[in-house]
Amino acid sequence: MMTTPASFDFNRRVLLSTLALLPALIGPLRPKSAVAQTDTLQSWSDGPAKTSIINFVARVTTQGGPDFVPAEQRIAVFDNDGTLWCEQPMYVQLAFILDRVKAMAPLHPEWKDKQPFKAVIEDDMKTLSESGERGMLELGMVTHAGMTTDEFAKIVSDWLATARHPRFKRPYTGIVYQPMLELLGYLRANGFKTFIVSGGGIEFMRPWSEQVYGVPPEQVVGSSIKTRFEMRDGRPTLFRLPEVNFIDDKGGKPVGINEHIGRRAIAAFGNSDGDLEMLQWATLSGGVRLGLIVHHTDAEREYAYDRQSQFGKLDTALDAAALNKWTVVDMKSDWKRVFAFE
Amino acid sequence: MMTTPASFDFNRRVLLSTLALLPALIGPLRPKSAVAQTDTLQSWSDGPAKTSIINFVARVTTQGGPDFVPAEQRIAVFDNDGTLWCEQPMYVQLAFILDRVKAMAPLHPEWKDKQPFKAVIEDDMKTLSESGERGMLELGMVTHAGMTTDEFAKIVSDWLATARHPRFKRPYTGIVYQPMLELLGYLRANGFKTFIVSGGGIEFMRPWSEQVYGVPPEQVVGSSIKTRFEMRDGRPTLFRLPEVNFIDDKGGKPVGINEHIGRRAIAAFGNSDGDLEMLQWATLSGGVRLGLIVHHTDAEREYAYDRQSQFGKLDTALDAAALNKWTVVDMKSDWKRVFAFE
Repeated sequence: MMTTPASFDFNRRVLLSTLALLPALIGPLRPKSAVAQTDTLQSWSDGPAKTSIINFVARVTTQGGPDFVPAEQRIAVFDNDGTLWCEQPMYVQLAFILDRVKAMAPLHPEWKDKQPFKAVIEDDMKTLSESGERGMLELGMVTHAGMTTDEFAKIVSDWLATARHPRFKRPYTGIVYQPMLELLGYLRANGFKTFIVSGGGIEFMRPWSEQVYGVPPEQVVGSSIKTRFEMRDGRPTLFRLPEVNFIDDKGGKPVGINEHIGRRAIAAFGNSDGDLEMLQWATLSGGVRLGLIVHHTDAEREYAYDRQSQFGKLDTALDAAALNKWTVVDMKSDWKRVFAFE
Repeated sequence: MMTTPASFDFNRRVLLSTLALLPALIGPLRPKSAVAQTDTLQSWSDGPAKTSIINFVARVTTQGGPDFVPAEQRIAVFDNDGTLWCEQPMYVQLAFILDRVKAMAPLHPEWKDKQPFKAVIEDDMKTLSESGERGMLELGMVTHAGMTTDEFAKIVSDWLATARHPRFKRPYTGIVYQPMLELLGYLRANGFKTFIVSGGGIEFMRPWSEQVYGVPPEQVVGSSIKTRFEMRDGRPTLFRLPEVNFIDDKGGKPVGINEHIGRRAIAAFGNSDGDLEMLQWATLSGGVRLGLIVHHTDAEREYAYDRQSQFGKLDTALDAAALNKWTVVDMKSDWKRVFAFE
């Protein structure tokens, strides 16, 4: 069983958003698809982005209409970092890795003199970044492998219960985008099944995805390391191995969608070049489809970044958005509110 | 989009079984979990197997009871070959492979003199079986790779529309076990989410799993080969590569369950040693759990086989069933009817 921390700082809105699951359950039983509800998108400014969402949902849910899509094919896929929650000043999972290395350091005195661990312990970000992909992989494996899946889920939950975002001083589960929570609920209320398809670790997201996003573990797709089944003292366990299994990024996202979901999505939501192929896969095979990119344009309320960013670089996907008529959300003007706590 | 053949020989019972999805959708909304319905298991004889199923469902769905399990955690996993449909005289997917090699042979004149293809073309099962795992892998790759996922889904659907079981002279989608269809519907009617977890190919099952079992593509877990995302003439495709990605058998089944579902199942249904670890994973971690093994004891209506069988060998898992108090279905006495067409 997945462990979930009791002390999550849930606010009422997040809970209400989760309750939006209920209409999705009874939705398909209605004799006629209801006209798309719009008042649940209250954090979205009236404008082209909101209009494109509402028009798309209206078209695919209008029974008898030319663009009607049966409920079981209404699959929507969401990137996580930078699309559902904040990915600055660094990916949340990277903050987890750095914290974990520090927490584990007392048991590994040799790390004091060994890179890239030394750099982490000394908060030497320059040396750390020079350790490159190889260094990051080493840190990732040390912090993500060598325990059972249950143990890892507890480590993640315990960390999230105490870790705080450096700028917003909130738990990371509190720096999710309010308009996107509303969008998740809005789609579910219209019969969509919502999936997360993230480059982040699948086991890093699952312990909290249901409570925070209303997305159950079986609807989370992500990167993974290999696991091995073992009976230990008569108990079945899955032991996490220091070996990459799957990278759910760029061309890997359509692969992950196909592997986990087995059908194309009809709506895809992302914010960076890592989402380009997922958006292509969802939108360019015919039929009315929705591709949407969150463009981070609001340094005051959140962050402003795109083509040059270290995390969540948005360059070729922004050009592709213009070419393919994907909706580009201008965070500054399209979102009345970014976070629930504002 | 998955292609489904228009000419499937569906009978009314299969359709009715699919409709059993509806109660599952409204089930969780009922203020109090209803007492488990038993009359949907009409092909099951009264006896210990049926009783164990009904008792288990009653215990985990009784709100306020000591063994209550919330609906979102009611995950049930089913093996396919030999558990949901007939796996004799050979796995259905093997029959597909042999038929495909013959269908492709005119385009490969060199196969006439090249093993293991020659053996397939000449129906020389002895030489074929001597080609071993390596030969089978070669046949599997030739027939499963080298096309897009959409193309492969169509190949499977087209084959199923015309292929017939050698003994029962029915489409393979018609030799599914009627009692297991009822069990799938019964569990869904009690708030369970039903998954297939099969050693068979994930893309071989998905084109028909929803229509035949009421299990949508996203709830099918199976073995897979690697795929690669490619834009072809402006269209996104996934191209199937001749490289094994994942073998969903034995210790791989818990790995596949964790990767795809992200939580333990609380009920597991299998019929062979390939299901042992899945049953352990589901049942031996505490709580009231149901493990069930279909024992093929009925040569008259179906087949009788266990410890010595080439396909679906049931040996160590049968011993483990006694040890772990798993339910063993005696097909001959526990099932009033095996197939819907009887």
